[in-house]
Amino acid sequence: MKIAVDAMGGDHAPQEIIKGVEQARDLYPDIEFDLYGTQEQVAPLIENHERLQLIATTETIEMGEEPVKAIRTKKDSSIVRAATAVKNGDADAFFSAGNTGAVLAAGLFIVGRIKGIDRPGLTSVLPVANPTTSQQNFVYLDTGANAESKEKNLVQFAYLGKFYAQKVLKVKEPRIALLNNGAEEDKGDRMHKAVWQLLHDDPALKFVGNVEATELLVGKADVVVTDGWSGNAALKATEGTAKMMLSLIKHGILNGGLRAKLGYLLLKPVFSQIGEVMGTSNYGGAVLLGLKAPVVKTHGSSKADAVKNTISQIHEMLTTKVIDETVTHFGVVDQPKDVDNSSQNG
Amino acid sequence: MKIAVDAMGGDHAPQEIIKGVEQARDLYPDIEFDLYGTQEQVAPLIENHERLQLIATTETIEMGEEPVKAIRTKKDSSIVRAATAVKNGDADAFFSAGNTGAVLAAGLFIVGRIKGIDRPGLTSVLPVANPTTSQQNFVYLDTGANAESKEKNLVQFAYLGKFYAQKVLKVKEPRIALLNNGAEEDKGDRMHKAVWQLLHDDPALKFVGNVEATELLVGKADVVVTDGWSGNAALKATEGTAKMMLSLIKHGILNGGLRAKLGYLLLKPVFSQIGEVMGTSNYGGAVLLGLKAPVVKTHGSSKADAVKNTISQIHEMLTTKVIDETVTHFGVVDQPKDVDNSSQNG
Repeated sequence: MKIAVDAMGGDHAPQEIIKGVEQARDLYPDIEFDLYGTQEQVAPLIENHERLQLIATTETIEMGEEPVKAIRTKKDSSIVRAATAVKNGDADAFFSAGNTGAVLAAGLFIVGRIKGIDRPGLTSVLPVANPTTSQQNFVYLDTGANAESKEKNLVQFAYLGKFYAQKVLKVKEPRIALLNNGAEEDKGDRMHKAVWQLLHDDPALKFVGNVEATELLVGKADVVVTDGWSGNAALKATEGTAKMMLSLIKHGILNGGLRAKLGYLLLKPVFSQIGEVMGTSNYGGAVLLGLKAPVVKTHGSSKADAVKNTISQIHEMLTTKVIDETVTHFGVVDQPKDVDNSSQNG
Repeated sequence: MKIAVDAMGGDHAPQEIIKGVEQARDLYPDIEFDLYGTQEQVAPLIENHERLQLIATTETIEMGEEPVKAIRTKKDSSIVRAATAVKNGDADAFFSAGNTGAVLAAGLFIVGRIKGIDRPGLTSVLPVANPTTSQQNFVYLDTGANAESKEKNLVQFAYLGKFYAQKVLKVKEPRIALLNNGAEEDKGDRMHKAVWQLLHDDPALKFVGNVEATELLVGKADVVVTDGWSGNAALKATEGTAKMMLSLIKHGILNGGLRAKLGYLLLKPVFSQIGEVMGTSNYGGAVLLGLKAPVVKTHGSSKADAVKNTISQIHEMLTTKVIDETVTHFGVVDQPKDVDNSSQNG
């Protein structure tokens, strides 16, 4: 398998990207890497060229650029070139820590959607922060690829999440829930009520009902399906609250004198464990599911370790052929009832 | 001033409701209370009848009941009777810890909207959890009274929040922000982009732009305006994450042996302070703003202390005449440009 890597994207690119890629290369003998980036910046940083080649590009898409315009005009950028390699079959997956919008646009317009998927969903694996369960994580989509969604999009997200949970997280029969504004079945606006019904009536989905954002991290399901708008708000509020609480604790310790500092030292293992549960770098990158190949975006702040973990995730996606499962389902098997085939290529 | 109290609503009703009301009565010599509840349950619990009378009712709306149906059929329930007293001018405000939907429905259909307000917004005062600022709290609406909102609703929420921040939180010129899926001005779906423009163009509002849910508790604004759908998701995710993190810490301490327990004892003041910042009972109840009188719903789990704090909040609303300010603005002053007057009574 070959992974096309955007070596230029991310706060610590290209150093940390290359470092992480080399670590992953040493870990997985079955992966080859094509690194897309400028000759002068990338070449000197490569330590070992085994199963790793630089493909020189001349342009870079910066973090602040308007995504669609950027991928249309910067044809020789690392993002566009890497995505094009996947499209042409020269690579099997695309990895980037760069401009999220540009990565999503390159995925959507260059790599392309699976037939039968109207809108891909940006997918994260999130931690279950519940000490009373052994469940460690769950699949959450759409985290914000689509600001506006329709019923059929959410049903497709349920299938995309199901296959991902089965193949990558090894959950035999994933429990699927819908993020809604109440737990009861009659909750939600018209759209969410309709989605509840569609998911509930689908015999191929193990639908366990609505889940509220208060219970997102409790581990009530293996896949939580949401529209990109509220999914984005809930995920960001989760991240923000975790961050603010840690900062309150830190501030309290720093201003609590010797007593608090001693308390911190004694509780350090507890805090480390929580940091590990809540930390982003252990959960890989965000996958734009619904495309013809794995397109995975990791945090802009990623260092080598997070890059390596995200490559592991891509390795698992390719090994388990999760995309093939999706293609087969949407291409051959019965489609969700409400898929409007006429708009597939719209 | 007289407050109509639903003595029957809440997990600890009527005991804790009455206890909290009596505490507030002893604190504020200018408040009289009418307690609506059943003779046999409420009468024996009243310790002192000074400025406090029981108005006997025969029905109770339970937590699980369908709200609109309940207020239509249970005419002699504490919720319907208390709301009706406000409508008839027999009381100045309505307080309940009961069935949220029924309280909102009673507010909307019995107490009634202010002329010019299309949809009231459920409003919470939330903590700023940022140790680097002196700002302690901010106004957040709509937390979920409306599952579907239009542009004009959000502009009205901005005004409702502004008056509340000015009068109740004593912020002279409240900074107003819009909860959106990105900080930049071009972010959001069509609706949020349009709201951004309306708020930005309004010279009467000190609009400071978009705020993302990651920064909700950072204190970037005094009023955060949101549609009820994403506002609900972000608020619930915030509550859920805070709760899960505390439970992870607790679990870590309980399972960390003597060392962790000692560490906890030393850090106890830090945890108490965080508990105080993040705790719900210090911030009063949720106010359905946009109605002709204060209609305030406090957590179902409220004990006497939370009841007393919520009465303080109502006292402040009545003393500062925040509702009058709203009535004057929407009745006499220029209305936000996009208010569709024809639908006011719709």
